[in-house]
Amino acid sequence: MSFHDELNQKVDKVNNLLESVLKVNAGFADYLMEAMRYSVYGTGKRLRPILMEATAELFRGDAPELPYFMAAIELIHSYSLVHDDMPCIDNDEYRRGRKTTHAVYGETTALLAGDGLLNFAYETAAAAFNDTKDPVKTAGAMKILTRKAGIFGMVGGQAVDVDCEKNKNPLTKEKLLYIHENKTAALIEAAMMIGALLGGASAEDVKKMEEAASAIGIAFQIRDDILDVVGTFEELGKPIGSDADNDKDTYITLFGFDKAQEDVKMYSDKALSIIESFEGDKSFLIKLVESLVSRNK
Amino acid sequence: MSFHDELNQKVDKVNNLLESVLKVNAGFADYLMEAMRYSVYGTGKRLRPILMEATAELFRGDAPELPYFMAAIELIHSYSLVHDDMPCIDNDEYRRGRKTTHAVYGETTALLAGDGLLNFAYETAAAAFNDTKDPVKTAGAMKILTRKAGIFGMVGGQAVDVDCEKNKNPLTKEKLLYIHENKTAALIEAAMMIGALLGGASAEDVKKMEEAASAIGIAFQIRDDILDVVGTFEELGKPIGSDADNDKDTYITLFGFDKAQEDVKMYSDKALSIIESFEGDKSFLIKLVESLVSRNK
Repeated sequence: MSFHDELNQKVDKVNNLLESVLKVNAGFADYLMEAMRYSVYGTGKRLRPILMEATAELFRGDAPELPYFMAAIELIHSYSLVHDDMPCIDNDEYRRGRKTTHAVYGETTALLAGDGLLNFAYETAAAAFNDTKDPVKTAGAMKILTRKAGIFGMVGGQAVDVDCEKNKNPLTKEKLLYIHENKTAALIEAAMMIGALLGGASAEDVKKMEEAASAIGIAFQIRDDILDVVGTFEELGKPIGSDADNDKDTYITLFGFDKAQEDVKMYSDKALSIIESFEGDKSFLIKLVESLVSRNK
Repeated sequence: MSFHDELNQKVDKVNNLLESVLKVNAGFADYLMEAMRYSVYGTGKRLRPILMEATAELFRGDAPELPYFMAAIELIHSYSLVHDDMPCIDNDEYRRGRKTTHAVYGETTALLAGDGLLNFAYETAAAAFNDTKDPVKTAGAMKILTRKAGIFGMVGGQAVDVDCEKNKNPLTKEKLLYIHENKTAALIEAAMMIGALLGGASAEDVKKMEEAASAIGIAFQIRDDILDVVGTFEELGKPIGSDADNDKDTYITLFGFDKAQEDVKMYSDKALSIIESFEGDKSFLIKLVESLVSRNK
């Protein structure tokens, strides 16, 4: 099977998993569940759960807790997009060519849908305890997920990004790296660390995967900054140069275009060399990382 | 010691616990941690952690996991207030006489502070696994907390409340009970169920505590509706009759003032009779419940 077919198969599998998790009636509150479903369905790349599973496969492979955490991390990613798109943050009406949640359901419902998704993510992760033979390991996965999603991870990165943009606080190189490391890389770290942990990796190997994931996340985000300059609306599903239009500093405005391209390669090489140092079946994971850092959309 | 002194001592203890949990530097994102601290500090009654501890004391008492979950549930309560006060929901500038988070820090920071608090709540709860001798029990507490806070609990109740108010969907008696049961009672249920579970209660007794807590939550919320009619600004810290001004249906407009007062008593009696059926030291818990349902602010 080609990498492309294998990836599509994995995307379908994650989509089915998310559908089965979200296909639940919430009674009077079901209109909110509908908005939560809308926020999760669509054209997402499902990168984080796929990275989680591929990392688990690099170690022992299938673990009963894996689907719970795969769904949970995508629900967390989805909540973050819903809140980021809201008028008081990015005020985006479209994401990947599709209307954002607040554009369809209004701001109030979007706020609550994001809250609902975040809680539901942790509820879904906590349900892994029903299926585990090793609650200490499951607890470890829960600790990673809660840490990397919050103020010491994704929320922290988002907070600094917003602070620089809204409050016109100067964005230094150090701060931009902090933003990329936290806003983007932290959840990718959670995905690969949890995959490794649940797959049976040692604490040392979980740590190595954190380093690889951090490099992947940063490379991915720099690539995003590059695409914002060179992409097309068709490819990206959002207006071109929207960051530049906002006078927003990016990796390119701070480090230059050539350095940005070099650094994508540098971080990618770092991640790949860590992944290649493992014994297990890593061919899909390597192709996935390569596709991420050279993607055109 | 008088009940009043004992209660104040417990409030101080919870405040110290929250301070110790939140006194952590978040680097570049520390401005957000500052907004999170502001959102939690202040004049909160700390009802949920105090109910949790008092319920644990009714059973075996001190459990090492208790402080983690006491802090977590108050962080969840705080996040819900921050988001509820935002312009796109209640648009409240004051709560209990103190400026709300968005009124001080702006809407964007309030949104992220709420997200930060919710994640941090679960991160704090997950840290209980570091201190537990019984990870299965801790997992049970985590499952209760995530369930009762989300769309099948507090968020669901809030969603239906907002839907009736913003979209002018008719508020039926059935829906109002759903709102009170979920928006208010669900987190009180979580507090008392987790207290019972961590305190060593049987599954059957945890279930009984859920029923007692549900009744307390509903009585508390009906009392709130009554106070909104009879309270004073000084006592409540918010404009009087603000619900009535908004044309918002309440327990009183739907059931009548007398029935509201009767039902506070009916639900309170139900809760008290469940609590009294237990053997342990229940004197503080009984006084606390009595004070809640007869409170003037």
